[in-house]
Amino acid sequence: MDIDAAELQSFLTDLDADIRARADWGEVADYIPELAKVAPAQFGVAVALADGQVLQAGAADTRFSIQSVSKVFTLACVLGRSGEQIWTRVGREPSGTRFDSILLLEQEKGRPRNPFINAGALVTTDALLAGRAPREALSEVLAFLRLAAGDEDIHIDRAVALSEERTGFRNIALANYLKSFNNMTNPPEMTLGTYFHQCAIEMTATQLARAGRMIAQLPRAPAILAPEKARRLNALMMTCGHYDGSGDFAFRVGLPGKSGVGGGILVIAPGVASIAVWSPGLNLYGNSHMGTFAAEQIARFTGWSVFG
Amino acid sequence: MDIDAAELQSFLTDLDADIRARADWGEVADYIPELAKVAPAQFGVAVALADGQVLQAGAADTRFSIQSVSKVFTLACVLGRSGEQIWTRVGREPSGTRFDSILLLEQEKGRPRNPFINAGALVTTDALLAGRAPREALSEVLAFLRLAAGDEDIHIDRAVALSEERTGFRNIALANYLKSFNNMTNPPEMTLGTYFHQCAIEMTATQLARAGRMIAQLPRAPAILAPEKARRLNALMMTCGHYDGSGDFAFRVGLPGKSGVGGGILVIAPGVASIAVWSPGLNLYGNSHMGTFAAEQIARFTGWSVFG
Amino acid sequence: MDIDAAELQSFLTDLDADIRARADWGEVADYIPELAKVAPAQFGVAVALADGQVLQAGAADTRFSIQSVSKVFTLACVLGRSGEQIWTRVGREPSGTRFDSILLLEQEKGRPRNPFINAGALVTTDALLAGRAPREALSEVLAFLRLAAGDEDIHIDRAVALSEERTGFRNIALANYLKSFNNMTNPPEMTLGTYFHQCAIEMTATQLARAGRMIAQLPRAPAILAPEKARRLNALMMTCGHYDGSGDFAFRVGLPGKSGVGGGILVIAPGVASIAVWSPGLNLYGNSHMGTFAAEQIARFTGWSVFG
Amino acid sequence: MDIDAAELQSFLTDLDADIRARADWGEVADYIPELAKVAPAQFGVAVALADGQVLQAGAADTRFSIQSVSKVFTLACVLGRSGEQIWTRVGREPSGTRFDSILLLEQEKGRPRNPFINAGALVTTDALLAGRAPREALSEVLAFLRLAAGDEDIHIDRAVALSEERTGFRNIALANYLKSFNNMTNPPEMTLGTYFHQCAIEMTATQLARAGRMIAQLPRAPAILAPEKARRLNALMMTCGHYDGSGDFAFRVGLPGKSGVGGGILVIAPGVASIAVWSPGLNLYGNSHMGTFAAEQIARFTGWSVFG
Repeated sequence: MDIDAAELQSFLTDLDADIRARADWGEVADYIPELAKVAPAQFGVAVALADGQVLQAGAADTRFSIQSVSKVFTLACVLGRSGEQIWTRVGREPSGTRFDSILLLEQEKGRPRNPFINAGALVTTDALLAGRAPREALSEVLAFLRLAAGDEDIHIDRAVALSEERTGFRNIALANYLKSFNNMTNPPEMTLGTYFHQCAIEMTATQLARAGRMIAQLPRAPAILAPEKARRLNALMMTCGHYDGSGDFAFRVGLPGKSGVGGGILVIAPGVASIAVWSPGLNLYGNSHMGTFAAEQIARFTGWSVFG
Repeated sequence: MDIDAAELQSFLTDLDADIRARADWGEVADYIPELAKVAPAQFGVAVALADGQVLQAGAADTRFSIQSVSKVFTLACVLGRSGEQIWTRVGREPSGTRFDSILLLEQEKGRPRNPFINAGALVTTDALLAGRAPREALSEVLAFLRLAAGDEDIHIDRAVALSEERTGFRNIALANYLKSFNNMTNPPEMTLGTYFHQCAIEMTATQLARAGRMIAQLPRAPAILAPEKARRLNALMMTCGHYDGSGDFAFRVGLPGKSGVGGGILVIAPGVASIAVWSPGLNLYGNSHMGTFAAEQIARFTGWSVFG
Repeated sequence: MDIDAAELQSFLTDLDADIRARADWGEVADYIPELAKVAPAQFGVAVALADGQVLQAGAADTRFSIQSVSKVFTLACVLGRSGEQIWTRVGREPSGTRFDSILLLEQEKGRPRNPFINAGALVTTDALLAGRAPREALSEVLAFLRLAAGDEDIHIDRAVALSEERTGFRNIALANYLKSFNNMTNPPEMTLGTYFHQCAIEMTATQLARAGRMIAQLPRAPAILAPEKARRLNALMMTCGHYDGSGDFAFRVGLPGKSGVGGGILVIAPGVASIAVWSPGLNLYGNSHMGTFAAEQIARFTGWSVFG
Repeated sequence: MDIDAAELQSFLTDLDADIRARADWGEVADYIPELAKVAPAQFGVAVALADGQVLQAGAADTRFSIQSVSKVFTLACVLGRSGEQIWTRVGREPSGTRFDSILLLEQEKGRPRNPFINAGALVTTDALLAGRAPREALSEVLAFLRLAAGDEDIHIDRAVALSEERTGFRNIALANYLKSFNNMTNPPEMTLGTYFHQCAIEMTATQLARAGRMIAQLPRAPAILAPEKARRLNALMMTCGHYDGSGDFAFRVGLPGKSGVGGGILVIAPGVASIAVWSPGLNLYGNSHMGTFAAEQIARFTGWSVFG
């Protein structure tokens, strides 16, 4: 796993050029109107190394909507705040179903399979509120992210949040369904508002890679996440981080990762590096098409797969 | 990850004593009459290290029926024989369902979710036959295991195989169901006979730990599995190795593993160690109750979790 | 099928006495707070005959919340208004699932199985609105019911409607889920408001039996429903009128029927009679326990079963 | 319901001519090799009236494989033999799934939804055996059918039975799956053999219409079925007789019916007539395409719908 930073930088630069030459970018998520406006043919990557360096290639400083990648950070906040209590309300098994499926929720009587599908993330956000106003809970997540990334310039894109509030009927359905099973303590619209704003956080690949250092437990990362909790986040990202494409990501990349429909993927090489890739076109599982390809190439080049 | 072998041996000896003092062994699988005869209160562990040592504690030399742990080795044989073709017939996603579920098979039109649930393993065994008689295919698996373990004394327990042939109605259902979708090339009873015999292979924890060295890619392991294939087996074991308890195993243990209803679990620490635990009592997912506990304790003591 | 009215009256009087002597009334629906207040040990029955007579026994003039029985009448309005178009948006097959299931809706991509489960009834109510304000659509349903029953004294219980609006999270989930599949033309809260008010219509057994005469096509019923439409409503009531207890009702009673969680059941003997039974305690399918028993006894006594 | 026999005969003759002029016959079942040989463009109809007349049109005397229509008669035998005990092993609710679905069987732990889907019919046949050899059980069914039809010339087509035995993998799966839930008392292959032979009974439309007279309770029918049992068979045929097309058949035809993949449908007008239609081409639910059309036309012409 000893990688020469200069060689890796050269590889990333070539990878960026290679990807830009390709035509198969996938399709931008169209169910959130604001996200549908983003041009698919974009790519950026950033790799935060153990020695503190952050390598970059492509549009590593372009902001994008982190969407479901935020679920890792809200879960980290909730685990920090109330420990393992959350597991009474949400499981930690892969779901085998789409990110917005409501099917298993009925079969399992309102306890979502894991905190990374939408239903489970709604429960996590509901727990994050903990009697506070949405503004306070969101401030906590932003403060946590800024501290993790060492960068104050991280914000919520309110246009995206409002766009989801107006059109996110499936998430509204999930929240009300959870409420009907008494697995939502706040009014559904309050949890939903918080959730849509949390998903609408904008970050660059560089910021995201830096924020992920604590999950990778890099030596110079801010000490804001207990090693045990980082380990658990990685386990969940490995088995559940890509919805019904999680097995395929593990098979091809061999690293824990969490994707968002904005096209970002946070990939963790525990103890070694935190990687953020971004490309807005999605594959059929709703994960970044070129981002997944890039993650696979990087894992292959570096030999960072946790599977040997 | 530098572990002192003497310290680990001492830990394993204590762990064995600790487990023997407990009363909650779980229930022995009762749907295979021959296995139902096994006493639940047994425990054995073996750890094959990179330097060639094999540490042992408890009943590490007692033979047990490896059952579904065999699926890892038949898949290795099939991958070696015909490469990646198998993935046209079986997926590699966690199923979120019981090991013997037929439900997803209907929804997904006869293509099992992964090769470690029963339906997927039947497809793998069907591919293993490749026009040969069951005897030949089984000889290949046995030869592969003996070579991997460096031990000729590995055999099939025919009483167990016959016991399953007489009572394995759910597996007979799965095989015929696959046939109805044209995802079984041999007569169902031929593939079933091979499958029941493969599951009835008997090994000790020591033999199993030694056989797993190639999957862990330990330096002194026999060179009979390409690194790329070992990596893929590990990825599948991590996401799918414990049926609908896979996420929980990843969360608690943090290592790829594959369980069998005989109470054995093969656990891989890539590049570092191959671990076999055995205890016949099962938890509600059909995985060894004490075996899972032991794997968790060993991972915690050694810090071998791939998640940092 | 020639029944002497005096004999039937005597039978109904005895049936009422018999039921009052029993203790197994079932449980009142508790998920709508206002309905949970109703005492379960009540029973009423009314039978409208072809000659214009309406026989009564028990609390036949006590008002109750007709709830899902209303779905028959809104469907009749929609069929009258826009004909068979509705079948592009909703099916007419039994669902085999609970009245409020969301599971099939995902599998069938937002097209509910039939208009009598909640999801399908929400689509019907959505079609009923047809660009009008809720008040207008509800006025149409009320006017239709008053005309059918020949009784102006039929109203909506606003306390029940508000109770459902505050607590009907599962219906809110269904409406938003339908919207996400573009099978809801109005804002979900608008259709939901109309739906909750429609379900909150209060009627007596006598009024309900009289309103059902047009579906039974009794000679003296107001001519406000074409025979072809009446026939279709009866077919749907037979196969889908009691959720996942529809087969059992057909088996035991042998007549088309539609139940509501308020404890009412409208039962049709085509060409012969319209029957309304009411008892608030429910069986495990969510249908009136004593109402079903009474319907079975009446069918047996009269020989009105359509099955000979 | 007073129909002039001469007018009806004239209508049937015209209907036959009309159907022969059409091109949309549907597809012959291809999963049973012997049935796949049958030419789709065939049609026959027979109507047994209360006065003893049997009207005919088209190929009313051509033999066809009655397949699942047999399920009505084996159920009648079982109800006659052991009464209502069968309902502890099989339900009476519409399934909402395909005739050969295994999905619900897993969710409902081996108790099939109703006796007319394949899983339920296998349970009925298993109960029919009642400790006897298959030959004896089949003799009972044949004797019952011959008595009902008043015609000794009814036989099993062994080529069809063997064809199913060789290729009926999905039924083999269902039988073994039932066995795994202890809902099959005989060895699966014994019940399957009996089932395949029962389905391979050959009859003409005329014979089938005559055999159905007892279910219609026509005055001159042989008295071999209690009225209560006939009523129950009709209820089951109405709600479950056409698999996941049962609701549609009730909606369009308005009479109890049972279809088979050989293209036959038995349709009952209780107290009035027993109708058999046959045309081998199937619609997407696996029911006769032209047979359903013909049943609908006859119901419309005669006004025999039980729904008024």
